[in-house]
Amino acid sequence: MRYAITVEYDGAGYSGWQRQLNAPTVQQTVEEALRVLTGEETVIVGSGRTDAGVHAAGQVAHFDTARELDVYRFRYSLNALLPEDVKVVKMQRVADDFHAQYSAKQKTYSYGMYISRTPSPLRRGRFVRITPPFDVEKFVAAARMFEGEHDFKAFGNVGSEVSTTVRTIYSAEVKVCGDEVVLYLTGNGFLYNMVRVIAGTLVRVATGKMPSEEIERMFAEGTRTHGIKTLPPYGLTLEKVFYNIFPPEDKV
Amino acid sequence: MRYAITVEYDGAGYSGWQRQLNAPTVQQTVEEALRVLTGEETVIVGSGRTDAGVHAAGQVAHFDTARELDVYRFRYSLNALLPEDVKVVKMQRVADDFHAQYSAKQKTYSYGMYISRTPSPLRRGRFVRITPPFDVEKFVAAARMFEGEHDFKAFGNVGSEVSTTVRTIYSAEVKVCGDEVVLYLTGNGFLYNMVRVIAGTLVRVATGKMPSEEIERMFAEGTRTHGIKTLPPYGLTLEKVFYNIFPPEDKV
Repeated sequence: MRYAITVEYDGAGYSGWQRQLNAPTVQQTVEEALRVLTGEETVIVGSGRTDAGVHAAGQVAHFDTARELDVYRFRYSLNALLPEDVKVVKMQRVADDFHAQYSAKQKTYSYGMYISRTPSPLRRGRFVRITPPFDVEKFVAAARMFEGEHDFKAFGNVGSEVSTTVRTIYSAEVKVCGDEVVLYLTGNGFLYNMVRVIAGTLVRVATGKMPSEEIERMFAEGTRTHGIKTLPPYGLTLEKVFYNIFPPEDKV
Repeated sequence: MRYAITVEYDGAGYSGWQRQLNAPTVQQTVEEALRVLTGEETVIVGSGRTDAGVHAAGQVAHFDTARELDVYRFRYSLNALLPEDVKVVKMQRVADDFHAQYSAKQKTYSYGMYISRTPSPLRRGRFVRITPPFDVEKFVAAARMFEGEHDFKAFGNVGSEVSTTVRTIYSAEVKVCGDEVVLYLTGNGFLYNMVRVIAGTLVRVATGKMPSEEIERMFAEGTRTHGIKTLPPYGLTLEKVFYNIFPPEDKV
């Protein structure tokens, strides 16, 4: 039997999603709880890795087990075993050919910032502080330039394993509330560090250090403009993974 | 010279605001940083106490010093000395008769909740989880009943030092976003635990365990209905303290 779980986690205490030797990761934290409950050497397959410090509101993973599970009761028991910074917010039986990584059609990431000269204790570890001046309208307008199909070579830190650097961003939305600015990117795939580099690019534009036309040049030439930072991991959250064969369901 | 500072803090690591022996508090954390900078035995006076675990976005305190300070540079140095969970977000020179507690006219507190059967790692320590069913409309309607001048005797844990339990709530607003419900109360004063008891009362109504008419009875008779919980401290945030003689100023 194959089951899919949706996992929410605060990445601060973990060396990312993927299992590692000698470092706590979210994957092994969930696997260890699953093994206690199933009595099997359960391995979970996530929709993709998240880096050390990156959060998830809706990471999805699948696993197989010989037993038929009551998903509601099983999830409850699993959460009782899991630490408070990792919880399974949804669980459902899926078809044998469901694959958390290969069946994924789209993902939404968010990147959270606040614009202030002073560090904010209540936003630390979740939002990245950007020093003003900051032109929100420029930020929003430049974010729109990322929508559509582009070669994101200049915006990812590409390893040799990637066959193409062309990706499609379906939407680049910005939510502004007080001094907070949150970027939401939904796309069919993301290169390594891509959201953090795009956020860094938009900050460069919004703080007046780079004209937005430079984004067009990066798409065309595939090289990153000097001065663009890969923003830190803790502003990044994997919000949602979309599947055709995985119907949406309320968290509640 | 008298100065007022606005302090933001994550209450998780502190035994509240007020200085104590053998327990870390926000007051002594700020005082110790001030003493390093002024070289004086500086004492700060807050607008009021906050309990262990309670947060503040805008606690206000004043202190006196023999030196004239460049508020911008001083605040910067102060924040460099302060830990990341306590920061001074605003500082200004005030008149000698300004008093952070006695000059305060109004305060706004927020109480944050989310409605879910599952604990949320990304909301922990800031929002309190409430198990559904939860009727948001009932919550909002019952919150409105607290607006105006009332005897809040049934809603506070009153010590003998309080001369009257009559207070005025100028506004009781509720912001709803997804499964999050945040109550904002602005009033001329609050009894001990009053916001946490009001939030607990509203939850009782919204979860269908108590009719809202019971709130009228509590105002009239001054006794708390059985079953109402004082909700935990970590959902509570002192948002803002209002003064006539303390002009508003941007955090930025």
